[in-house]
Amino acid sequence: MSVKHVVGDWGTTRLRLFRMDGGDVDARLDGPGALAGDAEGALAERLDVWKAEGALSEVVLCGMAGAPGALVAAGYAACPADAAHWLSSRTRLEVAGIPVSVLPGLSCTDSEGVPEVMRGEEAQVFGALALHPELGQGEHLIALPGTHCKWVSVVNGTIVGFRTHPTGELYALLAGQSTLTGPDTPGEGTFDDGFARGTERCEEPLTGALFEARAARMLDGRSKDWSRGYISGLLIGGEVAAQVPEGISVVLIGDQALVALYDRALAARGCTSRKIDGDAAVLAGLAIAKGQKA
Amino acid sequence: MSVKHVVGDWGTTRLRLFRMDGGDVDARLDGPGALAGDAEGALAERLDVWKAEGALSEVVLCGMAGAPGALVAAGYAACPADAAHWLSSRTRLEVAGIPVSVLPGLSCTDSEGVPEVMRGEEAQVFGALALHPELGQGEHLIALPGTHCKWVSVVNGTIVGFRTHPTGELYALLAGQSTLTGPDTPGEGTFDDGFARGTERCEEPLTGALFEARAARMLDGRSKDWSRGYISGLLIGGEVAAQVPEGISVVLIGDQALVALYDRALAARGCTSRKIDGDAAVLAGLAIAKGQKA
Repeated sequence: MSVKHVVGDWGTTRLRLFRMDGGDVDARLDGPGALAGDAEGALAERLDVWKAEGALSEVVLCGMAGAPGALVAAGYAACPADAAHWLSSRTRLEVAGIPVSVLPGLSCTDSEGVPEVMRGEEAQVFGALALHPELGQGEHLIALPGTHCKWVSVVNGTIVGFRTHPTGELYALLAGQSTLTGPDTPGEGTFDDGFARGTERCEEPLTGALFEARAARMLDGRSKDWSRGYISGLLIGGEVAAQVPEGISVVLIGDQALVALYDRALAARGCTSRKIDGDAAVLAGLAIAKGQKA
Repeated sequence: MSVKHVVGDWGTTRLRLFRMDGGDVDARLDGPGALAGDAEGALAERLDVWKAEGALSEVVLCGMAGAPGALVAAGYAACPADAAHWLSSRTRLEVAGIPVSVLPGLSCTDSEGVPEVMRGEEAQVFGALALHPELGQGEHLIALPGTHCKWVSVVNGTIVGFRTHPTGELYALLAGQSTLTGPDTPGEGTFDDGFARGTERCEEPLTGALFEARAARMLDGRSKDWSRGYISGLLIGGEVAAQVPEGISVVLIGDQALVALYDRALAARGCTSRKIDGDAAVLAGLAIAKGQKA
C-alpha cells in the first residue's frame, strides 16, 4: 500500500482538502476559510482524522493559506514566474507531525506601476499547463472568472503578468444589495435578455451605464431578473472588452455556469474559448508541487 | 398674521418638512423615508402638530413622495421640461384636511434609447434657476452629486436631458462592504493621496482599475483611508471624464464636502465650477410651486 499525501486549496471562504493515493483523490474533507481563525488547529483536526486511517507523507497547500494571519505568511513570488520559480518559493512548516508546504501567491507590477496580487489562481494556471502541455508553448491569455477574475498572460510556460477585475464581488454587491435592481415586483424580460442589453452598452463608462438597471424597471416594466442580467452583461462585457483583443482565442478556467457567461461575452467580440475545469486544474497544479525538495 | 404653508422634500431615507411663513422657514420637522410604510399617516401626524399652532394653507412635496407605494403615484413629466410643464403635472390629494400637491419626477430617453428617471433633483434645478436667473439663459451643465448623481443639461431654462451615475451608492458598497479596502490594519497614505491616484487612472475601464485598492494595501503598505480615497477618485474622476468636456464650467448643487470632491476632479480636467447650496435650491424650487392652481 502506498503512503498517501494530502493537497488542498485554502481560500477566503473554504478549505478543500484532498487525500491522494498516487494520482487519485481517495477522500475529501472541507473546512472553514483560511482567515477564520486558528488555521493550524483546523488543519490539524482534519489531518488527525486521516492519520487514524494510515500514514500521510506530506501536505501541499495553495491559496489564502499563505496570507498574513492565515496558516503561515507565504509571501508572493514575483512575475515573470514559471512553475519551477513558484514551487521553489514555498514556505515549510509542520502540522500534526506532518511536513506541510504552503505555496506562495504571485505578484507583479506593470509598466505603468500598477501593482497586482493573486493567491491560488496560479496553481490552476500551472495545473492547466501540466494537463495541456501545448499551452506551455507560445503566448496564451488565460481567464479565471470568479470573485476576483484574473486575466493571466502566459508566454512559453511563464506567467509574465496579470490583471484582476473584481467583477464577481461587484456583481454580488450590485445585484444583491443595491437599489439598482429594486424590489421583487413583477416585470418582463429574462436574465438572458438583460445580459444581451448589458453587452450592448458594455464599452461605455460603467457608472453611467449602470443606472439603466433601475430606470428600465421604472419606465419600461423590466423584471428584476432582467435587471440582474443587465448588470452581469455590463460587467463581464466590459471586462472582456478591456482585456481581449477582438478575434483571439482565450483559455477559460473555472466553474461551468460562470464560464458560460464569459464565453458569451467573448463570442460577442468574435473570440473563441477553450474551457478547462477549475477543480481539475488546481489538483494538477498541486500535483506538480508534491514531493519536490527544493 | 399670514397663513403659513408647508413644503417638503421626501426622499428614500428621510422626510424633511418645512413650515413657511411667507418666504421664510419658521419650523422644521423630519420623518421617515417615503417608502417606509403609511406615508399618509406619517405626514398627517406632522401636519397635526403644526395645525395645533395655527392654520396651514397647503402642502407641496417633491421627491420619492411621488413614487409608487409612497404617498401617491405622481408619475414622471417627460423631458424636455421647463418649470411650467413640471408644475402643471402635479398630483393633488388631501391629508389631515389640507390640500397637498405632489410634484412629479422627470423622465427622458436619449437618442440611443437609454431610459432615465429622477425624483427630487428637478426641484433643485428649477430652484437654482429661480435663485440665479442668468442660468435660465443659454446652455448649462448642472451636476447634483449624491447617491445617484444626476448630470442635467439645461437650455434656456428647459431640462433637455440628463444622465445618472449611481456613484455614491457604488462608493458606499465598495468602501464599506467589499474586500477591496480590506481590514483595519496600519498603512501609509491619506484619503487625499488615494484620491489623487484614483483620478490618474479614472479613464481606464473601472473593473480593471478598482483592484489597486486592494493590491496597493498588500504590496505597498497603503492605509485603508488611502484605499477608500483611491476608490472615490476612480469613481468621481471617471464620472466627470464621461460627462464633462474639458475646460467648461459646471454648476454643482449639493452638500459641501461631496461637492468639494467633484470640484477637485473637475479642476483636474481644467474645468471650473459654480457651487449652489442644495437646501437653498430645493426650497427655492418648492417656493415656485406654491400657490399655483394649474
